Amino acid sequence: MGEFELIDKLKHVLPKPSHRILVGIGDDTAVTLPPKERLLWTVDCLVENIHFDFSYATAEEVGWKALAVNVSDILAMGGKPLFALISLVIPERITEKKLLSIYRGIRECAKWAQVDVIGGNVSRSIDDFVIDITLIGESLKPLLRSGAGEGECVAITGSTGPSAAGFQALKRWGKRARKKYPLCVEHHLKPMPRLEFAQLLASKGVTSLIDISDGLSSELTHLAKESKVGIEIEEKLLPIESEVNAIAAVLNLNPIDWVLHGGEEYELLMTFPFSKFSILSSLALERGVPLTMIGHTVASPKQVRIRSRSGNLKVLKPKGWTHF
Amino acid sequence: MGEFELIDKLKHVLPKPSHRILVGIGDDTAVTLPPKERLLWTVDCLVENIHFDFSYATAEEVGWKALAVNVSDILAMGGKPLFALISLVIPERITEKKLLSIYRGIRECAKWAQVDVIGGNVSRSIDDFVIDITLIGESLKPLLRSGAGEGECVAITGSTGPSAAGFQALKRWGKRARKKYPLCVEHHLKPMPRLEFAQLLASKGVTSLIDISDGLSSELTHLAKESKVGIEIEEKLLPIESEVNAIAAVLNLNPIDWVLHGGEEYELLMTFPFSKFSILSSLALERGVPLTMIGHTVASPKQVRIRSRSGNLKVLKPKGWTHF
Repeated sequence: MGEFELIDKLKHVLPKPSHRILVGIGDDTAVTLPPKERLLWTVDCLVENIHFDFSYATAEEVGWKALAVNVSDILAMGGKPLFALISLVIPERITEKKLLSIYRGIRECAKWAQVDVIGGNVSRSIDDFVIDITLIGESLKPLLRSGAGEGECVAITGSTGPSAAGFQALKRWGKRARKKYPLCVEHHLKPMPRLEFAQLLASKGVTSLIDISDGLSSELTHLAKESKVGIEIEEKLLPIESEVNAIAAVLNLNPIDWVLHGGEEYELLMTFPFSKFSILSSLALERGVPLTMIGHTVASPKQVRIRSRSGNLKVLKPKGWTHF
Repeated sequence: MGEFELIDKLKHVLPKPSHRILVGIGDDTAVTLPPKERLLWTVDCLVENIHFDFSYATAEEVGWKALAVNVSDILAMGGKPLFALISLVIPERITEKKLLSIYRGIRECAKWAQVDVIGGNVSRSIDDFVIDITLIGESLKPLLRSGAGEGECVAITGSTGPSAAGFQALKRWGKRARKKYPLCVEHHLKPMPRLEFAQLLASKGVTSLIDISDGLSSELTHLAKESKVGIEIEEKLLPIESEVNAIAAVLNLNPIDWVLHGGEEYELLMTFPFSKFSILSSLALERGVPLTMIGHTVASPKQVRIRSRSGNLKVLKPKGWTHF
């Protein structure tokens, strides 16, 4: 298989580019009309046996997730995803069939998120398989990590913990985990960022926004640091899925560790004035998005603290996912 | 070393972002103002022991080249490079010191090409070291591969062959090749695309443009195919550096193979009406860029052919670099 043949086959998996694309795959670069709003730029990669494992994930799921984690970053700015560039670094053992299946997963996610895949690159590696995706989005008013004020509400969409619990279940039970714990496994293998809801937030009074990719404790710490505020969260307000509790019980682990520190959740953490809670709650409800207030910001101390069920307030240290 | 500490150290190697950048490294995404012209998008990666080898290349050179090959793609559209995203996939054996040196090479190239590094990603791998760079540029009138007409001049900047010859010299003599064959080694390790000249071409009558990354024979074939023309080139018109001849003589190889098929040259191949030759030649001369007419386009046959020194015209098959 030649490089150009491979590119041609991969290209044919993708949907036809939209009118925004003047030149797609096949020239020295892709060409698009410039978007009108502010541009958002992100890049993130999945590496086999670091971020995924074909022994329990399908190639389609890997493709979906490789794009979805980038979509999540654009949504975490309150933005709309637009264009993606896919860079594959491929060892010999990865078959053409597997690559085409991965591209079908990317296509499915691109259709869902209305993203145009406008270009990419394929290269050989010695052993590692890497899917590196650059995604560009736009936003009239990007929501930064630094916008939280004092005395504001801290809320999350959905719940945290399912992805970490699903990962542990897959490690323990392999593919059988899919039937036993479908919600957690789905959260881990095929995350579905809050596409529609995220794009409403900038105009509805949200002051800061971040996605929960590294774990809730890490993201709270980023938000507090960048916004120069303190945060107090209430353990009893943290939503926990019953499947997360069930997996933790079988594995004899404390589910709160996954809830606080589990990465790859791709939910949204945000702050807004308490006066905006009712409008945001009803917007969330209309779209079937769970939105839970988990705490509030304070002027000082400029730390993240958690109040336990017994009422003790203690510092919550970031313990999320780190590669290094 | 933690992931965030590493990102912070790498970030501090880079120059301060320009006024075009609203949010740089450190939020979920970077944020920029939208450029006004058409946008050009490209991504290309260097993989250790596939594209480079630390046994003869310095880390600074690797960093320079990783960005320069992308700059070349933007220039190959007649465009101006703007923003880069750097994605590193790093095995444990690559030290922080080496990463910082690579970033110094990236910085040097970014300053030269006036590129803002606006973001990136770092990830672990099992064994391969990958530097994947996405670069975005702009152009009022992008120069495609498909714009060549019949009866036009075919020309190249500089010469082809030095990069391939330099690579063979490095393989044969290691670091000692630097002193023996400085021009060829420099072409291979630290390519310098035609930054200023490329950006003039769209307004001076050039009809099609491509960079010579895969080898002259491959690029001629792309141009002929996309423009639906034939191309005839003259062997006796192909510029050959004396160092290329010298290396070929010592290695008992035919230098014309490097000239026709050697990849990674990052020179420009273009077409334009013969009436534009004098203005383009003088523009090139003013900027110290060698510009050589090597042949012309024909209506048929729609093939790339080469006339040998003895006058025989035969089909030139693409035999450039391919990974697969």
